[in-house]
Amino acid sequence: MKIAILGTGMVGHALATKLVQRGHHILMGSRTANSEPAQTWLQSVGGKAAIGTFADAATFGEIILDCTSGANSLTALRQAGAANLRGKILIQVGNPLDFSQGVPPTLTLCNTDSQGEQTQREFPGARVVKALNTVNCEIMIAPERVPGDHHLFLCGNDPAAKTDVTRYLSEWFGWKPANIIDLGDITNSRGTEMFLALWIRLYGKLGSPHFNISVVRGK
Amino acid sequence: MKIAILGTGMVGHALATKLVQRGHHILMGSRTANSEPAQTWLQSVGGKAAIGTFADAATFGEIILDCTSGANSLTALRQAGAANLRGKILIQVGNPLDFSQGVPPTLTLCNTDSQGEQTQREFPGARVVKALNTVNCEIMIAPERVPGDHHLFLCGNDPAAKTDVTRYLSEWFGWKPANIIDLGDITNSRGTEMFLALWIRLYGKLGSPHFNISVVRGK
Repeated sequence: MKIAILGTGMVGHALATKLVQRGHHILMGSRTANSEPAQTWLQSVGGKAAIGTFADAATFGEIILDCTSGANSLTALRQAGAANLRGKILIQVGNPLDFSQGVPPTLTLCNTDSQGEQTQREFPGARVVKALNTVNCEIMIAPERVPGDHHLFLCGNDPAAKTDVTRYLSEWFGWKPANIIDLGDITNSRGTEMFLALWIRLYGKLGSPHFNISVVRGK
Repeated sequence: MKIAILGTGMVGHALATKLVQRGHHILMGSRTANSEPAQTWLQSVGGKAAIGTFADAATFGEIILDCTSGANSLTALRQAGAANLRGKILIQVGNPLDFSQGVPPTLTLCNTDSQGEQTQREFPGARVVKALNTVNCEIMIAPERVPGDHHLFLCGNDPAAKTDVTRYLSEWFGWKPANIIDLGDITNSRGTEMFLALWIRLYGKLGSPHFNISVVRGK
């Protein structure tokens, strides 16, 4: 499958590498056509992928993984180009974290809006699915690092896109479909993005980002 | 132990009843000395407790459980009286939920502030511990309703108060101390209060408030 990775940070590297290992065709996009982090990544996978601009990636990909940081996402997607996103599934992995006032970060938008909603509003032709944003990237690509059943959340306005993303997350990364909870439409991004306020504190408390939550039903 | 319950809603009833069953001396406070919900509750426990105003309750209690709804909490605590709260542990159970725009609710404050912090600022003499606010009241008083290990979070500026509250939650309700995660100072209320944005959506999705999350460490 031809997959666009937007963003050359830790998350983009992790997902892109795993997808190359799975035999997919990857184009990692960044602001410039030959960014150093993208070149470094390309070398790390033995050149078995491509790099380019955000627009190159969005043109190439049948599906788009937005792995940019929250603060850069909108700019990156504008550079990717609305026309290149139209009709395609856009999995948004990032969170609108604001580190400008230090750690722990706050959110640049929350409570009555979310990055997921903002993205869907700005790119109505894209099939935005917010997913993977509640776990560290090493857990995203290897859920078996956390023992037992634990959960991932997704949301979006396009039911068929969510069904496809659930299958992709299972095939690409090994998430059990039964452990992927569809919260509903894209407004539910508020729930998963605001969870970061707790996640980031648990990260500090546990001293490791390698954890997840399990939703346990009671009686 | 002499325990003040502030609030006559579902949460106050649940906690107060369990504490009466445990042999504690309870005074349930509300805006008026003989509110109907408080009288109804008093009858339900066979009269083995007392009811009164918020100030009556705060005067009576060695420890205060703030079970008011978030929108009413500050007013209730002001009526309870700063002098009556001074030096006492105040467990704040509620969340700053705003249902004025419908369901799901938003938060009246979040991201750069929280109800826990607001309460500690307004009542610097009280030993505020934010706790229990991430589970439904039936789970608060009976964690065994959810199978296996699952977690509760607390935070506050007073380490001794948090140690005491951990012991109380164990003795009163059966929470395993190892499953109570101390997140740090009261600013961490932002984390547990903002989790409500996810909790409320999970409630809708699961069709029941009887669940909790387990934090599962990975590698």
